[in-house]
Amino acid sequence: MQRIVTLEEILRVLENIDRSDIVTAIEEGFKAFSNGEVVVPPVGEMIFKEQEGEAHIKYGFIKGDDYYVIKIASGFYKNRELGLSPNSGLMLMFSQKTGETVCVLLDEGHLTNIRTAAAGAVVAKHLAPSRVERIGIIGAGYQGRLQLEFLGAVTECREALVWGVSDAELKSYADAMSSKGFEITTTRHTAEIAETCNLIVTATPSEKPLLKAEDVRKGTHITAVGSDTEYKIELEPELLELADGVVSDSIAQSQLRGEIYQSRKAGKIVDEDLMELGRIINKREPGRTNDEQITVADLTGVAVQDIQICKAVYKALA
Amino acid sequence: MQRIVTLEEILRVLENIDRSDIVTAIEEGFKAFSNGEVVVPPVGEMIFKEQEGEAHIKYGFIKGDDYYVIKIASGFYKNRELGLSPNSGLMLMFSQKTGETVCVLLDEGHLTNIRTAAAGAVVAKHLAPSRVERIGIIGAGYQGRLQLEFLGAVTECREALVWGVSDAELKSYADAMSSKGFEITTTRHTAEIAETCNLIVTATPSEKPLLKAEDVRKGTHITAVGSDTEYKIELEPELLELADGVVSDSIAQSQLRGEIYQSRKAGKIVDEDLMELGRIINKREPGRTNDEQITVADLTGVAVQDIQICKAVYKALA
Repeated sequence: MQRIVTLEEILRVLENIDRSDIVTAIEEGFKAFSNGEVVVPPVGEMIFKEQEGEAHIKYGFIKGDDYYVIKIASGFYKNRELGLSPNSGLMLMFSQKTGETVCVLLDEGHLTNIRTAAAGAVVAKHLAPSRVERIGIIGAGYQGRLQLEFLGAVTECREALVWGVSDAELKSYADAMSSKGFEITTTRHTAEIAETCNLIVTATPSEKPLLKAEDVRKGTHITAVGSDTEYKIELEPELLELADGVVSDSIAQSQLRGEIYQSRKAGKIVDEDLMELGRIINKREPGRTNDEQITVADLTGVAVQDIQICKAVYKALA
Repeated sequence: MQRIVTLEEILRVLENIDRSDIVTAIEEGFKAFSNGEVVVPPVGEMIFKEQEGEAHIKYGFIKGDDYYVIKIASGFYKNRELGLSPNSGLMLMFSQKTGETVCVLLDEGHLTNIRTAAAGAVVAKHLAPSRVERIGIIGAGYQGRLQLEFLGAVTECREALVWGVSDAELKSYADAMSSKGFEITTTRHTAEIAETCNLIVTATPSEKPLLKAEDVRKGTHITAVGSDTEYKIELEPELLELADGVVSDSIAQSQLRGEIYQSRKAGKIVDEDLMELGRIINKREPGRTNDEQITVADLTGVAVQDIQICKAVYKALA
């Protein structure tokens, strides 16, 4: 019998899952992905021009796993005028043995936020310098909160400097994250983050670089999660050139969008410079080899993360 | 708020919708389809070799309509060994205005059966001779029952001769359909159906022709719904050559599978011989022009039927 799970139930379940278990699930997903064990057919798409709407169908499975997953995610940008969120969607989990519908997760896009934040923690686990002095978060929105929350599962550091677009946003961020045990300082200057933090996450919809190569110190790791189109960019292309290691969650996808796409287009890096996250986890590629290096990871999001977060939530429900 | 509808509820709702309302909904769908108003992106597919399983994602929308629909349908053929139905699946309905999930119909493939049967009735409405003497059903399975039930919405005739693969199957068919007001006679010879029926539906998974050209009388209409692969065939290819009109639900799909595909491959018909169901409904093509003609319709199933059956069930729920 299928299980139907409302957003309310999903949120309740997520509260009761250890962040580190979610991080491990996503980490296993990246391993399988880079081992070629994940089948991900082309994304389905519908465009609704008049409503400035689009719907995407992403789906796939890990070979030999118990389940396959289909995710429907939409963005209808005129919804804001109606006071509605632009993002909707749900995830569906089916048995790989019988095809039966196992679970319908009415997550309205929330699990995509969670799996993205968990990927940031996977990256930090493998690429952050051995001692994180201070965490820098660029982007004080919801994803910026989740990133810090999940970093808490992979580092002892609880001190964070946060950049945002308004004082109100920053105050709200500080209030929310202080209550989760973090010591939050805020700034309106991203250079200050580069000066004082050695683990930095960017989580904005920016269309111009927020972090400059010249500001970044040795021994820093930076994860960029914001850019998901060919227009968005958070890191100066020179920063990837400067880095000792540049890591992608999916080298195939980094040809089309994100920081790596931007830096390649600007002629600052070439494909041979790239490592893939799953290959670093699998110890096929070195990642960071000492605490003096600068590393950059660019996350564009891959379907195996959806598969893994679905399974993690379903397992916690049982 | 999304509405979640179980198979049990769907069956209950279907009992309370007039068959003729469903037929009208499907008819409107074919009209929109042949008018070029339906957007149907390529079908998504996942194959699970070891389990002899496959999952398909079909989706689309009528331009300017209220909803878009995604259907997931799977066939896992080893399920029979486990005592499970090979077919699973569900349908999802979303707002074309906001992208919000409107309805999840956990139909397990049942609505596909219904929309297929309703298409048979649409065809009969437009192509059957003016007086139906006796209905012939070749294939006494579940689809064969539904076809007759829906034909009841478009013809006064309640007399049917039914062919099946065993006496047990035929007895069960007769019992079920007698209770729905039909007068059922059974046979093990398809030629007997051709001799005495002038509205014939074939609904079998046969891989060799069941109905011969030489047996079919003038003034007969035949609808073939069984063949959905390039191997299946119910009608002798010569029968389409003999026919005065050959009608497809989707001429594009008929290039790839079904009776028309088979007859073209055998060199018996050419594309210029074909009419499209929606164009006949729209009076752009003649269909049947007198009661002496033989007409053949081949239904391969199109996504607009899924869109329309979803909407019809949702409307009846409200």
